[in-house]
Amino acid sequence: MEKNDILEAYREVGGRVETKGKVELKSKEDFALFYTPGVGTVSTHLAEHPEEARAYSVKANSVAVISDGSAVLGLGNIGPYGALPVMEGKALIFKQLAGIDAWPIVLDTQDTETIIQTVLAIAPSFGGINLEDIAAPACFEIERRLIEKLDIPVMHDDQHGTAIVVLAGLINAAKAVGKEVKKLRVVLVGAGAAGAATAMLLDEYGIEDIVVTDRTGIIHKARPDLSGMKVELAHFTNPRNLEGALQTALVGADVVIGLSGGGKLTPADIESMAERAIVFALANPIPEILPEDAKRGGAAVVATGRSDFANQINNALVFPGVFRGALDAGVTNIDTAMKLRAAEALAALVEHPSTDSIVPEVLDVRVVPTIAKAVSGK
Amino acid sequence: MEKNDILEAYREVGGRVETKGKVELKSKEDFALFYTPGVGTVSTHLAEHPEEARAYSVKANSVAVISDGSAVLGLGNIGPYGALPVMEGKALIFKQLAGIDAWPIVLDTQDTETIIQTVLAIAPSFGGINLEDIAAPACFEIERRLIEKLDIPVMHDDQHGTAIVVLAGLINAAKAVGKEVKKLRVVLVGAGAAGAATAMLLDEYGIEDIVVTDRTGIIHKARPDLSGMKVELAHFTNPRNLEGALQTALVGADVVIGLSGGGKLTPADIESMAERAIVFALANPIPEILPEDAKRGGAAVVATGRSDFANQINNALVFPGVFRGALDAGVTNIDTAMKLRAAEALAALVEHPSTDSIVPEVLDVRVVPTIAKAVSGK
Repeated sequence: MEKNDILEAYREVGGRVETKGKVELKSKEDFALFYTPGVGTVSTHLAEHPEEARAYSVKANSVAVISDGSAVLGLGNIGPYGALPVMEGKALIFKQLAGIDAWPIVLDTQDTETIIQTVLAIAPSFGGINLEDIAAPACFEIERRLIEKLDIPVMHDDQHGTAIVVLAGLINAAKAVGKEVKKLRVVLVGAGAAGAATAMLLDEYGIEDIVVTDRTGIIHKARPDLSGMKVELAHFTNPRNLEGALQTALVGADVVIGLSGGGKLTPADIESMAERAIVFALANPIPEILPEDAKRGGAAVVATGRSDFANQINNALVFPGVFRGALDAGVTNIDTAMKLRAAEALAALVEHPSTDSIVPEVLDVRVVPTIAKAVSGK
Repeated sequence: MEKNDILEAYREVGGRVETKGKVELKSKEDFALFYTPGVGTVSTHLAEHPEEARAYSVKANSVAVISDGSAVLGLGNIGPYGALPVMEGKALIFKQLAGIDAWPIVLDTQDTETIIQTVLAIAPSFGGINLEDIAAPACFEIERRLIEKLDIPVMHDDQHGTAIVVLAGLINAAKAVGKEVKKLRVVLVGAGAAGAATAMLLDEYGIEDIVVTDRTGIIHKARPDLSGMKVELAHFTNPRNLEGALQTALVGADVVIGLSGGGKLTPADIESMAERAIVFALANPIPEILPEDAKRGGAAVVATGRSDFANQINNALVFPGVFRGALDAGVTNIDTAMKLRAAEALAALVEHPSTDSIVPEVLDVRVVPTIAKAVSGK
């Protein structure tokens, strides 16, 4: 679709989510019950029993989709208004796929402390916090401190939603090319939010040979410019102590996963990889390499984040079910075991993985209940 | 209704508002348009043209209903969870009466600076800010600074919604008892958010004899304990320089307006007033005096904030229309002229005011468009 057609379609809808009353106020009696004076009884009750808020309010089923616009899709730091359409799209998906009442909240600040303080302040009316499109390294501290302080589930979807769906896709892609997943040599392009979290989850799953690259090249222990999360990455990845450019890492690799938000891969890069290579080019909206170019380079499996190519590895497969499970079961922290269970359960939905079918379709009705069950353990 | 029946009714509903998608994602093509990659086009456009956000997003029609729970109804400082049911009820009313997508946001802070910073931070995704149930004097500074800094309408409803509906009721109550409204001797019980704003609007309207009382008694220029807003009140009210207790002010008064959030009026208090007295006992859920007691004291007109008595003077008559008008016309500041027009237009909807009919019913379908027009001037 052309740019102007897309803009026109959005203008016609004018906001893809709205609110809806669950009770109708048809009479003075309805007002007396569901507004004043009736509401005073519920307010008094919740003031005395705040722990019961979920039973009597939107808190039971609501998620705030929060972004500061600092790392939107692969578009970069485009601010709150640039982020708003994405957050609204996620709110739409939350409702349609998981029945969750999510509201988009974009922030007029990119200061870590202000973001943390703001989310802490608005948390009481929400049952969960979906952080979104917040740049690394701030995203790591923001998520960590919010998880520490809040008693509702907090998940930075760019990190963990991505990590879960990538692991699911990788499990099936390995099957499709007849390789053992834990023995794959994996190169991750990008050490931002998604790259770091994916490296960690693949490592927890048991994949032994993971190499992460950033703009400077391969991340290794001897690099003097590393700090924060990248120091951690250097610690548990790159077992063969590679140094140099991305291209060095790619030679003989079984898998390349683009989470760079705009890095580039060429057919020649893919040619240098092992036979039956797996290419996940997940930058949105523009992948690191187009599927046709990756295939030209010899890739056996190609996945992108987009709906208009085969193998859509998109967080939309994950975040609705994760929060559905967390809200239903009162889970207050999405831990590593849950993430691994979610990835395995998602992968298992594809009965016969093939090069063109490594993850379920986003609209597959089995996906949300499957992920929800994996998260809640129920 | 009994307490347990009310709680049960709320539990059954489990949140009185929810979200709803305005487009359905039925196919991969829908996903490609309304999520990725299509959303990237809109994000890029809004990053370059943030001023067009309303045309493409929820910002066009959304209001945040925000409270810190410091002055909830007449129940006092009962915190965010105590406030949540009220904010949710307002969100329900916003949607049902004015088609506005409002979301309840209760704050885990009562610090003025943190509240201001939080609201500034979350403002970009909203088209308006309805502040609610925030205690005086913090509410005055919070509202003033948010109005200064934000380019969307901000209204503390306890102040201005109350002031508008009280003025409307008073215009018609005066007609009902055959007195001239601007010549009424008015006593306002309570110098908090609602009391102060009402005193100011009645003064702007041209009512000359207004006396405001707080817990200490009549507010007058010689009182040494006044600060902030109360100094202002002392300046433009109390033209006869009364001093002493509320009871002193009531002697011979035509009108008493209870906005005390829990003050008390007795039949004897009402007896001391002028003939054909007007009694607005507006504390919610428990009025300063019950209608039967006020009538026993000789009141000709009695109004409360509740749905279950005649003459419901409730902000629900005002806030949906104010924000409807502001959103439709792109009004960024609700000024005094708009408030006066809104009060007069609301009063004019009652063709033949009588002691039992001084304001329209909350469900009267003419109310929202009338107020909206008064605010937008269109």
